[in-house]
Amino acid sequence: MDTPRPPAVAIALPDWVDEVVDWERAYATDEDKMRLAIALSRENVARGAGGPFGAAVFEEATGRVVAVGVNSVVRLNNCTLHAEMMAFQLAQARVGAFSLAGEGMPVHTLATSCDPCAMCLGATLWSGVRRVLCGATRDDAMLLRFDEGPVFASSWAYLKRKGLEIRHGLLRDEAVAVFDLYRALGGAIYNG
Amino acid sequence: MDTPRPPAVAIALPDWVDEVVDWERAYATDEDKMRLAIALSRENVARGAGGPFGAAVFEEATGRVVAVGVNSVVRLNNCTLHAEMMAFQLAQARVGAFSLAGEGMPVHTLATSCDPCAMCLGATLWSGVRRVLCGATRDDAMLLRFDEGPVFASSWAYLKRKGLEIRHGLLRDEAVAVFDLYRALGGAIYNG
Repeated sequence: MDTPRPPAVAIALPDWVDEVVDWERAYATDEDKMRLAIALSRENVARGAGGPFGAAVFEEATGRVVAVGVNSVVRLNNCTLHAEMMAFQLAQARVGAFSLAGEGMPVHTLATSCDPCAMCLGATLWSGVRRVLCGATRDDAMLLRFDEGPVFASSWAYLKRKGLEIRHGLLRDEAVAVFDLYRALGGAIYNG
Repeated sequence: MDTPRPPAVAIALPDWVDEVVDWERAYATDEDKMRLAIALSRENVARGAGGPFGAAVFEEATGRVVAVGVNSVVRLNNCTLHAEMMAFQLAQARVGAFSLAGEGMPVHTLATSCDPCAMCLGATLWSGVRRVLCGATRDDAMLLRFDEGPVFASSWAYLKRKGLEIRHGLLRDEAVAVFDLYRALGGAIYNG
């Protein structure tokens, strides 16, 4: 408490994400997209960089990666930096707009290695992505003893009414395997 | 789409917040705290800096301001930068921890000029604040045509079960007056 105004906050990915992401590739199918989100979650755990969660935002039609995120809560001392939140913010910085659904923009898709928590579900609505692909389920994350916050069937129904298309449980086993790795390595449960 | 990796994102307050916040003052009462949140919302509108929403995080016992936030969605092209989200992140940067409820920390209180949206409600849970003071209501914001996302009575009940103390409608009329100013000035509804 020794400065009158808190410093600015910087949100940046670890350099190693470039070893996981192929920025030139067309991630064509839903499974291609989800495998990238899960690969990011796995590498985040293997490097001891954060929680077992990864996410990526794609242009749906071209399959190009716009931005990715990895859970960075502990690494950056910032409770808001779930994987989805990083991916949304970096994607919006890249396109230079506060929504990925602006006039003339292509459809954007989020792939996340786990169902979004309450915060990330809300941000998904504000982000402008039109499709959402989820790997592990809320119950899977809670079995790992992460709190996921107040998300209900009616929360998802709200997003669907707004026109979002949502798939749950895509490559769930592969996503849950990363949770198992996290548990085996003794990873921190920062909000249990 | 011309760089392989999106740039880092920087989250910083406008310089004028130092004209609104007294970093040395003890904001003793709930009303003192709320008046600061509302003053930030008002100045954000008057300066054309963003939506009519302000927030501040305090040490409950001393009344000292740890960090503040103003809606910065349009200014920083970032859908996640609601006032509460800025305040949480800047507070955590200042204390150097990903939770404001860490071992040995004092109780922290959030004052926000409007009921949190779905995203901010989730982040409130992760932030570690133990008390939440809200000014204008969700219905007030929706009358202004802002979408607030999936927040239900059960969402608030979830936070209360986790031990958070919550007050709604504190100085509501003063908070709503800022919404009226925003409408009169033709402010953008960025997520309607």
